[in-house]
Amino acid sequence: MRLTLSQIAELTGGTLRGDGSTVIQGAAGLGEATEKDISFLGNPKYAAQLQTTRAGALLVPPDTDTFGRPAVVHKNPPYGWARVLELLEKERQRHPSGIHPTAVIAKTAVLGRDVAIGAYSVIDENAVIGDETVIYPHCFIGADTRIGKNGLIYPHVTLRERVIVGDRCVFQPGVVIGGDGYGFTLHQGRHYKIPQVGGVEIGDDVEIQANTTIDRAATGMTRIGRGTKIDNLVQIAHNVETGENCLIVALTGVAGSVKLGNYVTLAAQVGVAGHLTVGDGVICGGKGGITHNTKPNEVVWGLPARPIKEELKIQAALQRLPKILEEWKKLKKKMGIEI
Amino acid sequence: MRLTLSQIAELTGGTLRGDGSTVIQGAAGLGEATEKDISFLGNPKYAAQLQTTRAGALLVPPDTDTFGRPAVVHKNPPYGWARVLELLEKERQRHPSGIHPTAVIAKTAVLGRDVAIGAYSVIDENAVIGDETVIYPHCFIGADTRIGKNGLIYPHVTLRERVIVGDRCVFQPGVVIGGDGYGFTLHQGRHYKIPQVGGVEIGDDVEIQANTTIDRAATGMTRIGRGTKIDNLVQIAHNVETGENCLIVALTGVAGSVKLGNYVTLAAQVGVAGHLTVGDGVICGGKGGITHNTKPNEVVWGLPARPIKEELKIQAALQRLPKILEEWKKLKKKMGIEI
Amino acid sequence: MRLTLSQIAELTGGTLRGDGSTVIQGAAGLGEATEKDISFLGNPKYAAQLQTTRAGALLVPPDTDTFGRPAVVHKNPPYGWARVLELLEKERQRHPSGIHPTAVIAKTAVLGRDVAIGAYSVIDENAVIGDETVIYPHCFIGADTRIGKNGLIYPHVTLRERVIVGDRCVFQPGVVIGGDGYGFTLHQGRHYKIPQVGGVEIGDDVEIQANTTIDRAATGMTRIGRGTKIDNLVQIAHNVETGENCLIVALTGVAGSVKLGNYVTLAAQVGVAGHLTVGDGVICGGKGGITHNTKPNEVVWGLPARPIKEELKIQAALQRLPKILEEWKKLKKKMGIEI
Repeated sequence: MRLTLSQIAELTGGTLRGDGSTVIQGAAGLGEATEKDISFLGNPKYAAQLQTTRAGALLVPPDTDTFGRPAVVHKNPPYGWARVLELLEKERQRHPSGIHPTAVIAKTAVLGRDVAIGAYSVIDENAVIGDETVIYPHCFIGADTRIGKNGLIYPHVTLRERVIVGDRCVFQPGVVIGGDGYGFTLHQGRHYKIPQVGGVEIGDDVEIQANTTIDRAATGMTRIGRGTKIDNLVQIAHNVETGENCLIVALTGVAGSVKLGNYVTLAAQVGVAGHLTVGDGVICGGKGGITHNTKPNEVVWGLPARPIKEELKIQAALQRLPKILEEWKKLKKKMGIEI
Repeated sequence: MRLTLSQIAELTGGTLRGDGSTVIQGAAGLGEATEKDISFLGNPKYAAQLQTTRAGALLVPPDTDTFGRPAVVHKNPPYGWARVLELLEKERQRHPSGIHPTAVIAKTAVLGRDVAIGAYSVIDENAVIGDETVIYPHCFIGADTRIGKNGLIYPHVTLRERVIVGDRCVFQPGVVIGGDGYGFTLHQGRHYKIPQVGGVEIGDDVEIQANTTIDRAATGMTRIGRGTKIDNLVQIAHNVETGENCLIVALTGVAGSVKLGNYVTLAAQVGVAGHLTVGDGVICGGKGGITHNTKPNEVVWGLPARPIKEELKIQAALQRLPKILEEWKKLKKKMGIEI
Repeated sequence: MRLTLSQIAELTGGTLRGDGSTVIQGAAGLGEATEKDISFLGNPKYAAQLQTTRAGALLVPPDTDTFGRPAVVHKNPPYGWARVLELLEKERQRHPSGIHPTAVIAKTAVLGRDVAIGAYSVIDENAVIGDETVIYPHCFIGADTRIGKNGLIYPHVTLRERVIVGDRCVFQPGVVIGGDGYGFTLHQGRHYKIPQVGGVEIGDDVEIQANTTIDRAATGMTRIGRGTKIDNLVQIAHNVETGENCLIVALTGVAGSVKLGNYVTLAAQVGVAGHLTVGDGVICGGKGGITHNTKPNEVVWGLPARPIKEELKIQAALQRLPKILEEWKKLKKKMGIEI
């Protein structure tokens, strides 16, 4: 990468401050950047680092002191940052291209234009792979599964049969989509399996990160809405439906038949109990356990998850509780109360 | 699938109500069913949907109003439902058959009658695969590992060496059985590895779901009892022994040397601390943390997990706590108490 | 294995007690051992089992009654135990050797002396594999990734591009290193991806267990310090830096940019919120949620994690809370207080 700061201003749609001819060759965090790098301020909390960073240029929000350093001012620095990193990535990343001779592709499978299939990947009967989708080595694409255009599927991903995937989806290594839902019924003292004959439907622009699992529906479809991003090691159970643009962070579990609205954020290690409805824009804090239907735009935390103000009051009260109980003991003694 | 309702009554052992000649071509949930589908009532909570569903026939428990729709009445509708779905599944599912030419099978491995081995699977020295077991592509079956009859092993499953698996087991994609237990001891300032030389023994009819991990024993055996069903992303540590017919739900972790009785249910994201004994029939609610031995048939919740009635009382008290502390403050002021 | 107890004393650096010519052929836990086995006492809590075990010899700490049985006395029995198990393991374990003809190895990859590459593993451009490192079948080693000497990499491990791994590292099946960090920014109503162009650097002697995921940095490096041991199903987010010799137990999640000191222990299912600093020697109890910077050597538990003494007091107070609230109600009634 070799860019002038003027070019970065143009690329990101930001405003140049200082010398536009400053040459940038890399990008790094404020603490690690050298004079050849551009760095950025993502969170005003870290503004103090702007004074000490060695970065040669900065990407900052309006009204930020850059201590004389040349900068691009942008109302959304992380977005500008993403645009710069895209250049770096394009330079560095070499995805597989072409069909590797060891790939096992069923005769009935349909591959679009410029599809890449890595070594040893297996594409089963009637699978459809959209134009320019890249499949790394060691993937398994089951029968009748359809992947849209411009997808990126890293190694060791399993899409079982009859999974439908939209365009521009990214699946990190080890993702499993379409494993059986957890459905059993007690019959004569044994857990009798309820066959999971449904499928999974993944909207456009969904990203699913490493080793996350999304189960197929018992009947019908498990659905992940367009633009939803799911972090590592998340469990999405059968017949869940997420809205669009949700964020579901690591180690979260969403139980069967839950409906999440749009723009729901489940921070890490959250649990959502079965069959609940979680409204648009709900945010649940880390380790929260949602046990009731939740209204749009509520911010909740705790187990069971409560409105965050309530939860924080309870946490503050808990902190004082041991002292209060001592006072209570003394009071009873002092007043000679026998209760 | 094309069945009359009479045939479904016979298949499931239920009682026909209404027109037995009604033709059914599919199965779907109450909300999604069309006139060609049968649907079912699994939980009385959703009985209101029976009035509005478009399903052409229903599978319901006794004494359920089906609003004139033809139905099969069954004392355990989910079981009847499972029997119907088995037909649908048989129709749809095409597992691998035969030995794929790319499979790498050690000369000393022993394959039973009608075993299927998918593309690129690797079967190591002295492994034994029972009759009619199906192994999908990309599996690794380690040396001296034995799998029983009629097993079903999805892609990317790893069974390391010396793992013993019973009959009719189902492993979803990404399962790892026989990875090293987490055993280290501090020696001269470093965590020195304690070799994990034991094995894993999995009973008949066990199902293990996607990306779950079951560690090999330090010495001896980690054991999963017959009929136990383990959901996605569960961690079972070394030397754990589960009883028969346990249900262990997603993202649960069971620490080393724990003994679970029969019919134990650990709802999602539960933790069980090391070396504990959990009695037959114990149920632990979601996110519970079991830190003490637990008597048979206890229902527990919370962290640390307590009998559920106690836990619910504490949760109710917590809910009131901030208000009580305000009252307490006022009382002290009013009474001029200095404690 | 066939050893005399004298040989075991010499091997482990322990002191012989009783008949040194006792012959040992195996090793087992106190409950399972037979007369041919040696067993050990790892925790004084289980000393009662020394009376009933059938073990032919014992490995015990000083001043332990072995009820007349021959023994090796060692100040750190688990370490002595590890030394014995190493012999058993060497006898049993047959790792792959040589380069399997089906391995796909880029011409630009560099393999050290006596490297083993299992069937179907893929080694991408410019990857470097150090001397005597063993790679099992079905692994993916990405472009420019470097693995040190004497590594052991089990099946289905993915190391994406530009990951650096030290010497003597062990990765259990299904590990994913270098998956994209979870980085998005809201732009025009969508979560816009921030490319993750950094890498991962893993120190010497690190072990990472089954299906654990370690994300690549946004820019710069995610770092796992020398000697750190990470259990199954753990999530390490982008730009985390762990110190040396940490223990991170199953199902724990460490959020982005967290810095862990040396010798930090995170027991199972712990969460650490983003950007925090956790000091050397900190121990967090199971299911704890660390939400603040934590000073060296603190022992914390709970959500939010507090010093353990404080947390245990709160838990004790909680246990009494329902009863106290009843007393409070009675007091108010008795005193005719209206608050």
